[in-house]
Amino acid sequence: DRPPQPASARTDIRDCSVDPPYLPPTAINTTAQLTALRDIMRAHSVDAYIVPSTDAHMSEYIAERDSRLGWLTGFTGSAGTGVVTQDKAALWTDSRYWTQAERQLDCNWELQRTTWIELIALWILQAVPVGGNISLDPFLFSIDTWNSYRQALHGSGRTLLPIENNLVDQVWGDQRPPPASSEIYTLPAAFTGSSWQEKVAGIRQQMEQHVRRPTAVLLSGLEETAWLFNLRGHDIPYNPVFYSYTLLTNTSISLFVDEMRLSAAARQSLRADCPGPLCVELQEYGQTRAHLQHYAQGNVTIWLGTEYTTYGLYGVIPQEKLLEDSYSPVMLAKAVKNPKEQELLRAAHVRDAVAVIQYLLWLEKMVPQGQVDEFSGAQHIDTLRQSEHNRGPSFQSISASGLNAALAHYRYGSALARASSSGGEDGTTDITRTVHWGVPTPLQKEAYTRVLMGNIDLSRLVFPPNTAGRMVESFARRALWDVGLNYGHGTGHGIGNFLSVHEWPVGFQSNNVPLAAGMFTSIEPGYYRDGEFGIRIEDVALVVNAQTEKPFLTFEVVSLVPYDRNLINLSLLSPEQIRYLNTYYETIRARVGPELQRQRLDEEYRWLQRNTEPFPLGSAATTTTATTILGTLTSLLPTLFTGLQA
Amino acid sequence: DRPPQPASARTDIRDCSVDPPYLPPTAINTTAQLTALRDIMRAHSVDAYIVPSTDAHMSEYIAERDSRLGWLTGFTGSAGTGVVTQDKAALWTDSRYWTQAERQLDCNWELQRTTWIELIALWILQAVPVGGNISLDPFLFSIDTWNSYRQALHGSGRTLLPIENNLVDQVWGDQRPPPASSEIYTLPAAFTGSSWQEKVAGIRQQMEQHVRRPTAVLLSGLEETAWLFNLRGHDIPYNPVFYSYTLLTNTSISLFVDEMRLSAAARQSLRADCPGPLCVELQEYGQTRAHLQHYAQGNVTIWLGTEYTTYGLYGVIPQEKLLEDSYSPVMLAKAVKNPKEQELLRAAHVRDAVAVIQYLLWLEKMVPQGQVDEFSGAQHIDTLRQSEHNRGPSFQSISASGLNAALAHYRYGSALARASSSGGEDGTTDITRTVHWGVPTPLQKEAYTRVLMGNIDLSRLVFPPNTAGRMVESFARRALWDVGLNYGHGTGHGIGNFLSVHEWPVGFQSNNVPLAAGMFTSIEPGYYRDGEFGIRIEDVALVVNAQTEKPFLTFEVVSLVPYDRNLINLSLLSPEQIRYLNTYYETIRARVGPELQRQRLDEEYRWLQRNTEPFPLGSAATTTTATTILGTLTSLLPTLFTGLQA
Repeated sequence: DRPPQPASARTDIRDCSVDPPYLPPTAINTTAQLTALRDIMRAHSVDAYIVPSTDAHMSEYIAERDSRLGWLTGFTGSAGTGVVTQDKAALWTDSRYWTQAERQLDCNWELQRTTWIELIALWILQAVPVGGNISLDPFLFSIDTWNSYRQALHGSGRTLLPIENNLVDQVWGDQRPPPASSEIYTLPAAFTGSSWQEKVAGIRQQMEQHVRRPTAVLLSGLEETAWLFNLRGHDIPYNPVFYSYTLLTNTSISLFVDEMRLSAAARQSLRADCPGPLCVELQEYGQTRAHLQHYAQGNVTIWLGTEYTTYGLYGVIPQEKLLEDSYSPVMLAKAVKNPKEQELLRAAHVRDAVAVIQYLLWLEKMVPQGQVDEFSGAQHIDTLRQSEHNRGPSFQSISASGLNAALAHYRYGSALARASSSGGEDGTTDITRTVHWGVPTPLQKEAYTRVLMGNIDLSRLVFPPNTAGRMVESFARRALWDVGLNYGHGTGHGIGNFLSVHEWPVGFQSNNVPLAAGMFTSIEPGYYRDGEFGIRIEDVALVVNAQTEKPFLTFEVVSLVPYDRNLINLSLLSPEQIRYLNTYYETIRARVGPELQRQRLDEEYRWLQRNTEPFPLGSAATTTTATTILGTLTSLLPTLFTGLQA
Repeated sequence: DRPPQPASARTDIRDCSVDPPYLPPTAINTTAQLTALRDIMRAHSVDAYIVPSTDAHMSEYIAERDSRLGWLTGFTGSAGTGVVTQDKAALWTDSRYWTQAERQLDCNWELQRTTWIELIALWILQAVPVGGNISLDPFLFSIDTWNSYRQALHGSGRTLLPIENNLVDQVWGDQRPPPASSEIYTLPAAFTGSSWQEKVAGIRQQMEQHVRRPTAVLLSGLEETAWLFNLRGHDIPYNPVFYSYTLLTNTSISLFVDEMRLSAAARQSLRADCPGPLCVELQEYGQTRAHLQHYAQGNVTIWLGTEYTTYGLYGVIPQEKLLEDSYSPVMLAKAVKNPKEQELLRAAHVRDAVAVIQYLLWLEKMVPQGQVDEFSGAQHIDTLRQSEHNRGPSFQSISASGLNAALAHYRYGSALARASSSGGEDGTTDITRTVHWGVPTPLQKEAYTRVLMGNIDLSRLVFPPNTAGRMVESFARRALWDVGLNYGHGTGHGIGNFLSVHEWPVGFQSNNVPLAAGMFTSIEPGYYRDGEFGIRIEDVALVVNAQTEKPFLTFEVVSLVPYDRNLINLSLLSPEQIRYLNTYYETIRARVGPELQRQRLDEEYRWLQRNTEPFPLGSAATTTTATTILGTLTSLLPTLFTGLQA
């Protein structure tokens, strides 16, 4: 057993200061990978090599084949940066992943608890002497990230050297998973609302109307090409996309993809109008850069989204031929759902509500008996959500929470559980409910209620057109802020139509676009006490026109599952918040009730009626100041209990 | 008389389509200036010349001597851009100034109702052929603005040509007002809280602690130099600053200023420690660029604020020797007031409250008798605000509102008036109250009440450290948004200590810095119906620590004047909002009441007691939904009446 440590020294689960080092059993030995990488770095005169967690399309989730950082470091979190020199190696990641990194890294790796590129660059400057080469794969860095490194290293006497032939891939060799080979298929017209030809025409119209008169749009995001052509694939876990680029010009369309993988129907659809401006030329994926470079020699202007185009492509276009926006017009068009897509997503949420209600009822019966753990729970919700509409979960129903001590196990019989469900191609859904089957503490109730108040305050907000999400996301936090609480993640993200569950560029972050009618976003405030409990209440909402004289906007919540009454402290809610809840519950009854009856889910129907009873208005906060309550509660935390994400 | 016009054609007060053109009597004939400028442009081979409204320090208010745009165009608004070619001339300004521009421009000038540089550049591209020169004075453009023009013209075949010898100044000749010659004096220690030597030491410490190890800070903002050395001058109306730059290095201090203007005490203070690192070298203002260029040849790193440094200085520093932030460390240090400054500002607001209460009482008696107009009103408040502490108003008590039809005159006996007062060096204050001495319409009451609700909701907000103002400014808008209303200006700005009434970089705009304890900001939501009425409720608030377990922040409102009870619809307020108001009124009574008694202002004291009576909690909004009210009111606008800013 490891020696006892003074608490102050326990900054890491690992202890690399003892011999042999103490490592948790989950740590991965990376000595062989590092030795091989360092050999090849020497051969290329590379003093430091930067390895990001992204793929060549800045995808949020990546294929195993692109998990270079995971293979090299052992760390499998979704966001991080590794840097290797001849005698040092370090991994930078954000607070979500610190515990996971401590459990996965061996003592070859320093863990740096930040993601600021300035600080990564500072570490590199200390590790690499003047005259040294700092290298990276230009296809794995966005323009902005590349520029940040370049600026941070500028004038330092070190060279930032792009190398196209990825060094990790060379070391990985034939152990690296092969490229995807599964079929790329056409999404049925019933699921799209507009043909790819209509979408192309719309984008070309935007090109003509732009003052810079761009001649082409470059699509680097995998969802962009999938959306534009109504095609889907399974190259990336949970996101139905496929490796591709598209160069859409005013007279031609080039799709860079493994042609052999297209279904016959897909091929037929793309080639039906050949030759002509609506003929899709199929080109090799690996030829994208060369083709773009050739095209950029003409009298052209190329429009692209800087948030997700890589320096590998951007760098071949002369500066004066670039039209840069944060997002391409395809990304923006995709964000606004047409009426058909809106109806599909609404209907998917009714079906999903049925599955989640079945699951919550099942948990309610099983958990107090100790007959469920997070794995069997997750299997159960996945089974419930299988249907003729549903091709698969749009992300893992159990996330990496198993690695996180704060979220690991049920204890004490009573449990605060987060049921988070996400329907894949059944119209993408994303919902989280937090439930408690015992007697919650006053702090748990207060925290839950304040998270709910935030969810309500943002959901019922009326706001002007062209309002950016970041300008209003504080409404989801204020009830927590009032008593000095907060949460460390974003308040919501866009939702794709039969596409990614996290869809840019909609949401409440600083780089999201203004909210517009037809966009879907999640609204998901939370509150977390490390090692104690976690709360999240997540709904999906559609941006709609408000009932105001001027054309203001508001949200229509399309998730249709009631909140846990056991965790609501009604006396904190304002009359407006209670009225909002009661109206929302009427909607749930009206939309989900008939479906439960149709499926003869009688017990679930009774559960729904019970859980959507209107709340009495008289209980609302009218006279006491809510801000005085929490002070008395902060020491009331005897129960260590934990969450479930399933 | 001019012929009647169809309403749809009335896009401009001017009518340049008739012969002779119709111009309002306020229009300025600019033919002579334009002819002379075009001559000199031809001599310099300049095809288009861009004239901004700023000075070489990006000051918000400028001296007459810097009012090049005003002299050239006749337009005297504070923000605009003029462009002159051989056969065209256009002025771009924002919506605040459209009416004013229509009244001041003659038919030599197109009025462009936008300020987007992309659109200005597009106009220039249409007016200037390929191969042409587009010129500007590099000392009148911030780095960002310069870069925007450069980017917009990049690859267009036109040259962006900086010319240091300003062409307008050459034409203006000896008609141009002379440089300021008034004394530059030392602010007494009682008003500063720290010596300039302490301030210099603090900035040098920040330089040493910065990872880039800058060797110098360049101060381009006039308030930066004034603040650093505790000096004041009167070169700019209403802002007690003087023309200067400072280069503060780790071993020396260069102050670029007209040395003759320094008072004996100021000179003594600056030179007391010569020679040595706390010796201030006095250099000619005109030598700044040459001195900086020479300094930049060494092994140095120069830290500067990109928001207000001009391209004229920035351009002489090699890129690798630059440390760029939005704001210099001096600007950030200045934004956080020390305890002494906080007390001075609090005390100034008590004195200012006395003056504003005297004024409101005077108006209450005089206005219904028709014995006051906005000019006599403004004179009266200025007289009231004279005191041993007060050197002058920090901006005009009457603004340009006289030019704006929407704000021009009292009508109908009853009047909605905005009393906006600002104390200059008596600790800067800034307050606006809107009052009504008749029977306000329901819409006026609802709009006023919602503006007040916004003011309260932001003022009482509790928020985490490092929150940017723009993240929370929507709280000041929500009550208006609820019924589809909004206002088109920012929600607040920083306040200087015996300095500018609008002080960067504090505030609620996107380029403001995060809020921190010790910062002062205005909170000033409003609502305006063009041609009918205008409402603004403005207070100054200090950022303070909140009563939360974690170190969260909130505001302490230091303005101490009650709101107009005649305009408050209590039934719209929540219980929390009423409680907040009552607590605020208790504070006003406790702080202002004794001062009124001390000055034997008995009538004012009774006015204060009457206007700070606690509101009954029972009237609060608890059961009706506020959002249904306005729909019935939008047609109830029979009374056309107008505002007063005084």
